[in-house]
Amino acid sequence: MYKGKVVLAYSGGLDTSVAIKWLMDQGYDVVTFTADVGQVVDLEACKERALLTGACNAYVMDLKEEFVQDFVWPALKANAMYQGTYPLTSALSRPLISKYLAKIAEIEGAVAVAHGCTGKGQDQVRIEVCTRALKPDLKVLAPVRDWHFSRDDEIDYAKEHGIPVPVTKKSPYSIDENLWGRSIECGPLEDPWTEPPSDAFKLTADPWDAPDEVEYVEITFKEGLPVALNGEEMDGVALIAKLNEIAGKHGVGRIDMIEDRLVGFKSREVYECPAPVVLLQAKKALEKMTLAKDVIAAKADLELKYAELAYVGYWFSPLKDALDAFFNQAQKVVNGVVRVRLYKGQSTVVGLKSPNSLYVDDLATYSTGDSFDHSAAVGFINIWGLPVVTWKQVHGSKKPAYQCEASSEKEPISSNQKG
Amino acid sequence: MYKGKVVLAYSGGLDTSVAIKWLMDQGYDVVTFTADVGQVVDLEACKERALLTGACNAYVMDLKEEFVQDFVWPALKANAMYQGTYPLTSALSRPLISKYLAKIAEIEGAVAVAHGCTGKGQDQVRIEVCTRALKPDLKVLAPVRDWHFSRDDEIDYAKEHGIPVPVTKKSPYSIDENLWGRSIECGPLEDPWTEPPSDAFKLTADPWDAPDEVEYVEITFKEGLPVALNGEEMDGVALIAKLNEIAGKHGVGRIDMIEDRLVGFKSREVYECPAPVVLLQAKKALEKMTLAKDVIAAKADLELKYAELAYVGYWFSPLKDALDAFFNQAQKVVNGVVRVRLYKGQSTVVGLKSPNSLYVDDLATYSTGDSFDHSAAVGFINIWGLPVVTWKQVHGSKKPAYQCEASSEKEPISSNQKG
Amino acid sequence: MYKGKVVLAYSGGLDTSVAIKWLMDQGYDVVTFTADVGQVVDLEACKERALLTGACNAYVMDLKEEFVQDFVWPALKANAMYQGTYPLTSALSRPLISKYLAKIAEIEGAVAVAHGCTGKGQDQVRIEVCTRALKPDLKVLAPVRDWHFSRDDEIDYAKEHGIPVPVTKKSPYSIDENLWGRSIECGPLEDPWTEPPSDAFKLTADPWDAPDEVEYVEITFKEGLPVALNGEEMDGVALIAKLNEIAGKHGVGRIDMIEDRLVGFKSREVYECPAPVVLLQAKKALEKMTLAKDVIAAKADLELKYAELAYVGYWFSPLKDALDAFFNQAQKVVNGVVRVRLYKGQSTVVGLKSPNSLYVDDLATYSTGDSFDHSAAVGFINIWGLPVVTWKQVHGSKKPAYQCEASSEKEPISSNQKG
Amino acid sequence: MYKGKVVLAYSGGLDTSVAIKWLMDQGYDVVTFTADVGQVVDLEACKERALLTGACNAYVMDLKEEFVQDFVWPALKANAMYQGTYPLTSALSRPLISKYLAKIAEIEGAVAVAHGCTGKGQDQVRIEVCTRALKPDLKVLAPVRDWHFSRDDEIDYAKEHGIPVPVTKKSPYSIDENLWGRSIECGPLEDPWTEPPSDAFKLTADPWDAPDEVEYVEITFKEGLPVALNGEEMDGVALIAKLNEIAGKHGVGRIDMIEDRLVGFKSREVYECPAPVVLLQAKKALEKMTLAKDVIAAKADLELKYAELAYVGYWFSPLKDALDAFFNQAQKVVNGVVRVRLYKGQSTVVGLKSPNSLYVDDLATYSTGDSFDHSAAVGFINIWGLPVVTWKQVHGSKKPAYQCEASSEKEPISSNQKG
Repeated sequence: MYKGKVVLAYSGGLDTSVAIKWLMDQGYDVVTFTADVGQVVDLEACKERALLTGACNAYVMDLKEEFVQDFVWPALKANAMYQGTYPLTSALSRPLISKYLAKIAEIEGAVAVAHGCTGKGQDQVRIEVCTRALKPDLKVLAPVRDWHFSRDDEIDYAKEHGIPVPVTKKSPYSIDENLWGRSIECGPLEDPWTEPPSDAFKLTADPWDAPDEVEYVEITFKEGLPVALNGEEMDGVALIAKLNEIAGKHGVGRIDMIEDRLVGFKSREVYECPAPVVLLQAKKALEKMTLAKDVIAAKADLELKYAELAYVGYWFSPLKDALDAFFNQAQKVVNGVVRVRLYKGQSTVVGLKSPNSLYVDDLATYSTGDSFDHSAAVGFINIWGLPVVTWKQVHGSKKPAYQCEASSEKEPISSNQKG
Repeated sequence: MYKGKVVLAYSGGLDTSVAIKWLMDQGYDVVTFTADVGQVVDLEACKERALLTGACNAYVMDLKEEFVQDFVWPALKANAMYQGTYPLTSALSRPLISKYLAKIAEIEGAVAVAHGCTGKGQDQVRIEVCTRALKPDLKVLAPVRDWHFSRDDEIDYAKEHGIPVPVTKKSPYSIDENLWGRSIECGPLEDPWTEPPSDAFKLTADPWDAPDEVEYVEITFKEGLPVALNGEEMDGVALIAKLNEIAGKHGVGRIDMIEDRLVGFKSREVYECPAPVVLLQAKKALEKMTLAKDVIAAKADLELKYAELAYVGYWFSPLKDALDAFFNQAQKVVNGVVRVRLYKGQSTVVGLKSPNSLYVDDLATYSTGDSFDHSAAVGFINIWGLPVVTWKQVHGSKKPAYQCEASSEKEPISSNQKG
Repeated sequence: MYKGKVVLAYSGGLDTSVAIKWLMDQGYDVVTFTADVGQVVDLEACKERALLTGACNAYVMDLKEEFVQDFVWPALKANAMYQGTYPLTSALSRPLISKYLAKIAEIEGAVAVAHGCTGKGQDQVRIEVCTRALKPDLKVLAPVRDWHFSRDDEIDYAKEHGIPVPVTKKSPYSIDENLWGRSIECGPLEDPWTEPPSDAFKLTADPWDAPDEVEYVEITFKEGLPVALNGEEMDGVALIAKLNEIAGKHGVGRIDMIEDRLVGFKSREVYECPAPVVLLQAKKALEKMTLAKDVIAAKADLELKYAELAYVGYWFSPLKDALDAFFNQAQKVVNGVVRVRLYKGQSTVVGLKSPNSLYVDDLATYSTGDSFDHSAAVGFINIWGLPVVTWKQVHGSKKPAYQCEASSEKEPISSNQKG
Repeated sequence: MYKGKVVLAYSGGLDTSVAIKWLMDQGYDVVTFTADVGQVVDLEACKERALLTGACNAYVMDLKEEFVQDFVWPALKANAMYQGTYPLTSALSRPLISKYLAKIAEIEGAVAVAHGCTGKGQDQVRIEVCTRALKPDLKVLAPVRDWHFSRDDEIDYAKEHGIPVPVTKKSPYSIDENLWGRSIECGPLEDPWTEPPSDAFKLTADPWDAPDEVEYVEITFKEGLPVALNGEEMDGVALIAKLNEIAGKHGVGRIDMIEDRLVGFKSREVYECPAPVVLLQAKKALEKMTLAKDVIAAKADLELKYAELAYVGYWFSPLKDALDAFFNQAQKVVNGVVRVRLYKGQSTVVGLKSPNSLYVDDLATYSTGDSFDHSAAVGFINIWGLPVVTWKQVHGSKKPAYQCEASSEKEPISSNQKG
């Protein structure tokens, strides 16, 4: 029975190639969509393979610039790191892919979209929620979740249907990659006591193999976004690519964490994100120079909330929009240059300057230029301390804190009467 | 006119030695108090110098163990880092010193306590607030803030009163040190564009001078506190000292930040805290294995609040007590061993194991042992996404997000009709 | 096929009576469990009906005291109100019922428990999550969710199996009730523009029918919990029942809100909770007298988190335990008497006294007894304002805020030159 | 010695009239500034009195509209209530007054501004911080804080200098008033056990004297702001004035609280704010219909932060600007009509409708139109409960929660074996 068209997010790999045929078996015409978000991908080869396998149409697109402008940059403004650690590499590309699934479904008059995620990953949640947020009437199909093939079944099915099966030995790792980083799962990494082996990494050198010479990079920020590297202005895609290369060469950007997955369990995740790690570190240092203390404090919680939204598939949500408004306003003054030292796996901020610096020499200095009103301290401390002093006075009839251990003899008091 | 006794927090340096005489000039009998909290100090020499300068009594005490048990460990349980970065080195010793100032004032029948802080630092606030919280009737004197001496005036006064003046050239840096780290201010560090010079550091090697060989340490935690290093049980003071040495040798533990001071301005602060940096990093990694996701999320904000309290002099406050109760409960399951790699300035967690691990292999694995119910995902996603889908349906009469840039032409859509 | 024993949460109504038979049809032996948590229930009649309908065993228990001690009181300590409004009436009884389902399953050697919730309520989530948290190996059955009976089908099935069907006309409302309040849903309430009709309420008078005389009650709190009413000490169950009666008579305790359900949609909910509303209001007023400002501020967020946990079925969770520790510590000083005026639907706190009051007359007064140091204000303001003044100085080269509307002519400035 | 011009915030009362002369005595030319923000004030009489007393120039301005547009409305968007209770009546007028002090100082070439606040109030902080934020080079004088007059001294000084002294007996209360409410302090209110006497109130009837008939008002909101009352569009000033009148007549809008003052102590504050109370209550109810659950949750904390900023004098601060951006975005969908019942001191929301309602009938209903997918619940609950179930499995080797009281005998289990 003919069910209409489905738009399949197509990576070009075995799973989604098999999915083309499987969806056709279910009665769908299959349109594929492949996006270049900075991973290693041959778009033309993808298109060809899709059409050969039976797709009735194959869209391929370079979305790197849109990825950076509309997804990576807002997340950078928000210093978005899930659980304070993960720069949301894969999580940020999912709403972009969902947007185009919905868009192509509209163009093609498709009744459904499909993706190659399994039933325990979080990308299934992100893609389904984002797609249906944009076009609620679309069905979302998940062939890999539904077909219940074993690996061998899948290969048999592929051979049977003339789908090319990769001959190389399967890597032990499961990888996802884009311009904003690379995530590595499975294989030996499933044991959290095991140090990630060198062969898990591709973008970053082992620290001990990194250059013996220190290298400095200077990053210029404008309204919270990087606009130049070592004084040379460049667009976002180029800047991230260049910084990935430089920082990666020095072994900078590896992340290794136990992460709470959206679907309710913990997972060990390894990432390599050279540019994100350096940019987030640099911007946070610059913020401490240019933002008011209470803005820094209020932001901490909102940054985590923002990252959570991106992680759980709530990119197209009103809370995310309101947080963007907050960050856009707050980041207007995050301007300046950050000097970062790269060496043997570590990036270190070693210099900061900004036209908006709130670090004011003549307040901070202990030298003779000091303009701070020292005598104000007396009144300040009086009022500042009033709540705790009042508290202790009210509760003092009990016993002062320092008598609590009166019976303890742990601190012999040594004193000497003079004369 | 005789005003009674004052207890002076006495470091043994020029400022507080001059303060002894100056307070005597004001009509006070001076009792000094010197605490060993892990800095380089010769307690007996201090006592002798105090008495020679005119103190009527001189207390000297080794408080390292109490410092660790009652101040450092609670702060570690709370992952307390001010503005997410500073492990509160100096801030943690101030309430301890205040406690003993109040205690000795009680013993001695003193009417006041005194400290050697200036009028723009934050230690004046911490000491005055903490001391008066414990004993509200005490006056707190700040001779250095009040005497309005220039450096030359002070030296003249010292010479005139027979107080020994150090002959060595004054270091450009202002230093405070204890077992939990070392803070370095002033001199060339006042320019945030300047990389901290090597001579600012004492506990940590320059990364390029650190050993060429990787070193691993294994830290055993029990209820959120470290109890063994490389399998060897040791008490807190010994463990911190040993870890300072090992991590410092590898150049680990340097911190460099623009910090918001309590008295309303920003300051560039440099710290070296080898043990704190490694312990905090290790424990946070272990927490991601042993704590529930919502505990980790809820804690983030409370950790910052805790650090803020310690930083601003609110150690003896009811909010701190309530937060301690929270952290003590939550940390009960933070048990396990963390393997940390030290190399050229960087510490990296590379292994985790715990009897309380919430990382459950057969849920997380993608291998055949998988026990996760994949089919549950369908219902979960349906309900999980319902709020954003509803939102977009209600607001959809306007225009879907993906049409916002309808007029833009930035993404030419490439597609190929098959056949 | 015989499947073993199931423990059914049994209300005595039609749904759960039908469920007894239906579960027996599925191959289970059915043990029923009925708890008295303060609703109108005849425990002995329930037992009899269960056994008559076919249950192999019927447990009935008065759990009112445990309900108050272990569920209501901790929630009151936390000022737990979901979305700031709903005192969690039904949500608090679910973990208690789950605990006994698990306990009886253990005693009876049952393989499953069952409840009468539908598939869109939140009680299904609470009961299933709580029960499996306590005894993860138990299956949880939801006959009403699974049997897909229409109302008529159900009545036919009941008649066919000799289950008594109530002859009275079904109320338009769906009700749940316990000592901590009564929740009312459905019927005319599904239209949020409709004012809840008088017949929806049972515990509270319409304000215009309430007594014309003001009534005062005095509630004594000890460590955050009420221990006496109008000076008369009573246990929790008695105190709540008495206060429900008094406040309800004056029409106090009605709540009407749009509420975000756990399962992803909004619902209009009406509650009547006379005692909870008065107790929460009174305690919050007393807290403002006895708790430090920063404790009040920090608690606000934690109270909402606590309520959320109870609402979403996470009662038996580590975050709830840690929050309990926080609240238990913080509430130690919430002691005192609160005087509340009840009149025509409204409760108003009109008097507060406490042995721990932080309201200190001679600080607060403007009369001659004033002990506040007015001169301290000058220094305080200087330092307090420093961050915003610095901010504006740094950003002032742009234009001061008050010139932003320079071109506007909206405020003609009227002035008069003298002489 | 002539010191230049000072701009004095002039109320027309005794304190600020004496201040004119006192500042002239100190060597200043005095320019007065009187703003109408909705209090009872005769601007022309003020001008005349100022000039008669010796002011060299007297500005009087009706700033009600600007007060509402730029101060009250942003605060309403943020649901700003200090400590969750106080709608910031006085706090909101201070930055407006500060803005005009700075503006007039610029026009007049004044070197200083002055205000009539005492040394323990918070208005001194607000005015000084706000004024110096706008024009950091201005001195801020506080004659009443500095002159150390007793009440009798002040009256003598006034008589001596020909300043008219009010002959009526001084009210026991200290009052501040504007369009957004009225604050009442001092006198009998300083005892928190005393119910506020009727004579403290001016805008609100005693509930028992309010009309015996219920009255309904319908408020139309657009993007979070009220635009019509009972269907009649009106501007902000008119709408607030009208609603103050209607609600006040029914005794609605009284607030009585222990409040944490900015200067470190607690104070008992009484307010009457008829329009603010109704508008805040109505808007919050409408938000629960139109905002997503996570927006409501995230806002709770930001609303308190916003109120805190306004309360402590940080109106002209970057955090406030960023929060405004958040609220402006989030409030775009807060559109609709709220029906409020007023009766005997109480306002109750009894009806809600909105073009943006997220309350979706066919999801929420339990009737036959139900469109919710009940079967999704099974998978949802599975994954939703996974974290707590995992937690308990990992920690289960200890003992399940329900055995904790195994030894307790408080719940005799009643059961009956059938047959």
